[in-house]
Amino acid sequence: MIEPDHSPEAVDGHDADDVTDMDALLAEVAEIARPAAKQGEVADYIPALRDEDPECFGIALVDMEGNEHVIGDVDRPFAIQSISKVFTLVLAIQKADEAEGVRKELWDRVGVEPSGDPFNSLVQLEHEKGVPRNPMINAGALVIDDILVSHCDDPRAELHALVEKVVGEPVEIDDGVMEAEGNTGSRNLAMANLMRSFGNIHNDIDDVMALYVYQCALKMTARQLARAARFLANNGIEPRTGERILREPLSRRVAAVMLTCGTYDAAGEFAYHVGLPSKSGVAGAIMSIVPDRYGISVWSPPLDASGNSKAGRVALHELTERLELSIF
Amino acid sequence: MIEPDHSPEAVDGHDADDVTDMDALLAEVAEIARPAAKQGEVADYIPALRDEDPECFGIALVDMEGNEHVIGDVDRPFAIQSISKVFTLVLAIQKADEAEGVRKELWDRVGVEPSGDPFNSLVQLEHEKGVPRNPMINAGALVIDDILVSHCDDPRAELHALVEKVVGEPVEIDDGVMEAEGNTGSRNLAMANLMRSFGNIHNDIDDVMALYVYQCALKMTARQLARAARFLANNGIEPRTGERILREPLSRRVAAVMLTCGTYDAAGEFAYHVGLPSKSGVAGAIMSIVPDRYGISVWSPPLDASGNSKAGRVALHELTERLELSIF
Amino acid sequence: MIEPDHSPEAVDGHDADDVTDMDALLAEVAEIARPAAKQGEVADYIPALRDEDPECFGIALVDMEGNEHVIGDVDRPFAIQSISKVFTLVLAIQKADEAEGVRKELWDRVGVEPSGDPFNSLVQLEHEKGVPRNPMINAGALVIDDILVSHCDDPRAELHALVEKVVGEPVEIDDGVMEAEGNTGSRNLAMANLMRSFGNIHNDIDDVMALYVYQCALKMTARQLARAARFLANNGIEPRTGERILREPLSRRVAAVMLTCGTYDAAGEFAYHVGLPSKSGVAGAIMSIVPDRYGISVWSPPLDASGNSKAGRVALHELTERLELSIF
Amino acid sequence: MIEPDHSPEAVDGHDADDVTDMDALLAEVAEIARPAAKQGEVADYIPALRDEDPECFGIALVDMEGNEHVIGDVDRPFAIQSISKVFTLVLAIQKADEAEGVRKELWDRVGVEPSGDPFNSLVQLEHEKGVPRNPMINAGALVIDDILVSHCDDPRAELHALVEKVVGEPVEIDDGVMEAEGNTGSRNLAMANLMRSFGNIHNDIDDVMALYVYQCALKMTARQLARAARFLANNGIEPRTGERILREPLSRRVAAVMLTCGTYDAAGEFAYHVGLPSKSGVAGAIMSIVPDRYGISVWSPPLDASGNSKAGRVALHELTERLELSIF
Repeated sequence: MIEPDHSPEAVDGHDADDVTDMDALLAEVAEIARPAAKQGEVADYIPALRDEDPECFGIALVDMEGNEHVIGDVDRPFAIQSISKVFTLVLAIQKADEAEGVRKELWDRVGVEPSGDPFNSLVQLEHEKGVPRNPMINAGALVIDDILVSHCDDPRAELHALVEKVVGEPVEIDDGVMEAEGNTGSRNLAMANLMRSFGNIHNDIDDVMALYVYQCALKMTARQLARAARFLANNGIEPRTGERILREPLSRRVAAVMLTCGTYDAAGEFAYHVGLPSKSGVAGAIMSIVPDRYGISVWSPPLDASGNSKAGRVALHELTERLELSIF
Repeated sequence: MIEPDHSPEAVDGHDADDVTDMDALLAEVAEIARPAAKQGEVADYIPALRDEDPECFGIALVDMEGNEHVIGDVDRPFAIQSISKVFTLVLAIQKADEAEGVRKELWDRVGVEPSGDPFNSLVQLEHEKGVPRNPMINAGALVIDDILVSHCDDPRAELHALVEKVVGEPVEIDDGVMEAEGNTGSRNLAMANLMRSFGNIHNDIDDVMALYVYQCALKMTARQLARAARFLANNGIEPRTGERILREPLSRRVAAVMLTCGTYDAAGEFAYHVGLPSKSGVAGAIMSIVPDRYGISVWSPPLDASGNSKAGRVALHELTERLELSIF
Repeated sequence: MIEPDHSPEAVDGHDADDVTDMDALLAEVAEIARPAAKQGEVADYIPALRDEDPECFGIALVDMEGNEHVIGDVDRPFAIQSISKVFTLVLAIQKADEAEGVRKELWDRVGVEPSGDPFNSLVQLEHEKGVPRNPMINAGALVIDDILVSHCDDPRAELHALVEKVVGEPVEIDDGVMEAEGNTGSRNLAMANLMRSFGNIHNDIDDVMALYVYQCALKMTARQLARAARFLANNGIEPRTGERILREPLSRRVAAVMLTCGTYDAAGEFAYHVGLPSKSGVAGAIMSIVPDRYGISVWSPPLDASGNSKAGRVALHELTERLELSIF
Repeated sequence: MIEPDHSPEAVDGHDADDVTDMDALLAEVAEIARPAAKQGEVADYIPALRDEDPECFGIALVDMEGNEHVIGDVDRPFAIQSISKVFTLVLAIQKADEAEGVRKELWDRVGVEPSGDPFNSLVQLEHEKGVPRNPMINAGALVIDDILVSHCDDPRAELHALVEKVVGEPVEIDDGVMEAEGNTGSRNLAMANLMRSFGNIHNDIDDVMALYVYQCALKMTARQLARAARFLANNGIEPRTGERILREPLSRRVAAVMLTCGTYDAAGEFAYHVGLPSKSGVAGAIMSIVPDRYGISVWSPPLDASGNSKAGRVALHELTERLELSIF
């Protein structure tokens, strides 16, 4: 099931604060991780994913002072797809923190338990009366979107603004992805309708789907994702501007949800082998948090059977072992 | 599903290193947590559990130097039941670290993913061809026991010795529990036979069950459980003796498995509300790890619907919020 | 689970061809069955069902010569709901018998196995890759409708014409039901979208749903349903006109599907206690076939837990026992 | 899913009462059915099954007067395996008909619904609290055996006597099968223990398993199975001796259970394509009932994916089409 992992040489003495060392370390990690991409497969359900270069590979690690350590294709944008679920969750938690009504509603309508099943399963959703297991799976993200449609004046604009705030620069939308996702969403429509039959979608399904498709189409680079992860590593405060995005306990809770639910049905293996709160997406990116220290992102399009970047996973494992970054 | 949890007063300025403060803080936590026990129910499938006093309540917190902060019934022994799964896993990982054959076998025969279903479900086990989701559920513990029966000369003696080593004093066996568990184990027998039909139990089922029943009947106090958790918080080294129990990365991995799988199907909520690697048992105890800082244990017999100590959960939440212990 | 049923007096010497005897027998059956309605509950998800009088009760039995034996409310029309699935299946089998392409497609896209789960479960549908278990459950009826949309010039008109042909008089549409079903169909929409994601719905979902809602709203009386069942009891030939509706083996197969799949998840109990191919609907009607002898219909709105008419089931049991009508 | 089956030449004008014709017809059926065996696979979990000659093929059809029409290997004995479930059910119903206590218990402890899942699934059993779907699946047969252990002085002897009574001659036990089944029964042990944990097995599991293994090892020929089916086609009366085995309505109910549950998860297809109450076994035999007319048996060891004899199924389809034997 999981690879035996007891190599005595795994831990290394690199000092993350030494720039030269860090660059050398990233080069070593990349050399080990890149070949793993060949064992994965690029997602192919829409052209934008299918056409992505499987050789793309990048790692970005940004510390709280803004020092950026990168290697590879870290400035090439891609649709962030499921990683956007972290940002919609943050937006919903902001709304919940402002209004008691939303607060009560939020965690009644979506859980925080790992799904333990493939990421788009309807079985669990039906068995649990239309309440999705957590906000990191598609069904949960649709409920979060429904909440945002109810409580934001312009949910797409607010989401876009939040992302640009934590990235520190303009972010674009991939029109091709937006259109393509709209055409291939039968499964999401099935889930939305099922949840609606249980009373857990309140708005018009088209409005909810529009926001969902929009968030999937947000285009970012690996470097930007690493920057965007920092406020969650910094107790909710965006380090560049000092602006508080989330109150401290809430920021920690987003990280907890990412650890237990952020990597489809491989959350246990991620915790075991990587040990960092992470969120992956079908485009092959993974965004990770090292509390108080780093925002990290890896990008390599070929996916493993669980839908996570194959080489990205290897890279994160090597990185956390060498720098002893695991939260455990 | 989960209680809204955004109270601005949740975080507190207590300094954990100040003994007086810590005692006052434990008193406050106990005062808040104790009443929650009334909403839980004591497990009743065997007399030893059914007859436990629902008013029992204790918290123990032991730091790496051996300073012990306690409140309540911390010196009254009880059968540790499922918490023993941590110790059998540690023993199996020791064996795996010594012999490559065991290493390969171990993680092929049991996974590290949260189960996402009630703790004794056969559904998943059948669907996944007799490979249990993780070593913290009964089925997984039975596979671990089968591995120990194969690779230990005297598995019960080795397990007992390990527990006494990390506790630092003799530990007894609850004969009543051992006998009663032996009589009520139809469900475990069903799982063992099912796994056997898939080839994932190698030894005589009676031998495997004998070890399982033995481990459940190990008697410890809340204070001892807090002590016993310390080597996992200390990178695998028993702090009192300096003896290495596990290599460092392996110790972190046990903690990761506890976080994602240690509290039945409430692992996500534990990560969210408590944020500490924890293992609970049906006797109402929870053993938690604060990396580099503490071994913690809480004990209060009444359980919530997920099988975790009701008041124990509240106590851990309060404790981690006030001392900012969450690993996230 | 099922009532013990070994009463020595169950079998009776009534001669079904003696009109006076038959009327007396229907009166006896009605007297026994009527009170059972009190243990059932009228479906309430749309007003047309919710407002139906729970006291309504009727039995109609029509032989091959057109002799009609009736008791109770047999001339009061109601929306036939799920019973319409028999007629859409017949229409699809007609199309399949005319064109080899349709023939191949039909039984690749829907099975003939009992569902073994509640009638609107998505679990099975997902597990079996979007191929519904049988054409008598909602998902299967939606696939049949999709086939009709593909292969009929005007599917609603053709269905309507078929029903009027076997009833022998005009049949109306309940506009209230049609509108209400259209508004409450989130679950059916979920299934249609799920099947679409598996490639098992080919047409626009709105077109498929329009036909589905139309068929549910067909209004018939108990007397008409009994007449409409006769061609299936008569090897596919409508007895009144002599027109062949289905070839003989195909007619028998529709009956087989009704027996194994026509009464939601109580098909086994129906076979056991009644022993006649039957189709039930949420309005409380059941249409049954006695090969070579009768078309039968019972109507009593209150339903049992499996969604079948409570009193209707008792009536059919009494009727088949007394007249020895069971096909077994 | 199922083969299109609309061939206009399917129905034939053979007259079953004409002996010469019948022999010719059986020869034709055999010629069509035999080659299908090549597409099946002989069960291989125990030597007695694995070593069976895949070329064996026999059909036996015995009418109420005792006329026997046979072709092929109809006098070669084999272990009847699951077909024995019909006889243990008959024995349990006899006990239930004699004592009200047993009557109440019987249908509370086992259902009559098709299982809709592979024949040895534990999923359903757990979901439905240890009450098996029907007496034709392993779990249900184990409950029936438990009832027999409770209510028979010598259950094995009584079962053996019943089988010899309906066969009309001595029947032997296959010691090899009995021993082998005893060694490979982990899955049945899993189910028995699971049901025991729900309180639905009352006796020592070893005693229940001993009866189960015994019934599987009963050795019969295809000719004997056809004879043995006759009392169920004859309203419960053994035609040779005139002895009543079951009261009439009870006999019909056994037939109903066979139709809806007797052929693993292909009961719907059997009803659709064959239309006769049937019970199949892993040795490749199928025993069928034509009410008021015949006991039928076919034997060909290679099985299809659902566990039913591949060629046997084809033979029964051809036979029922040509002789118009379907009960529908």
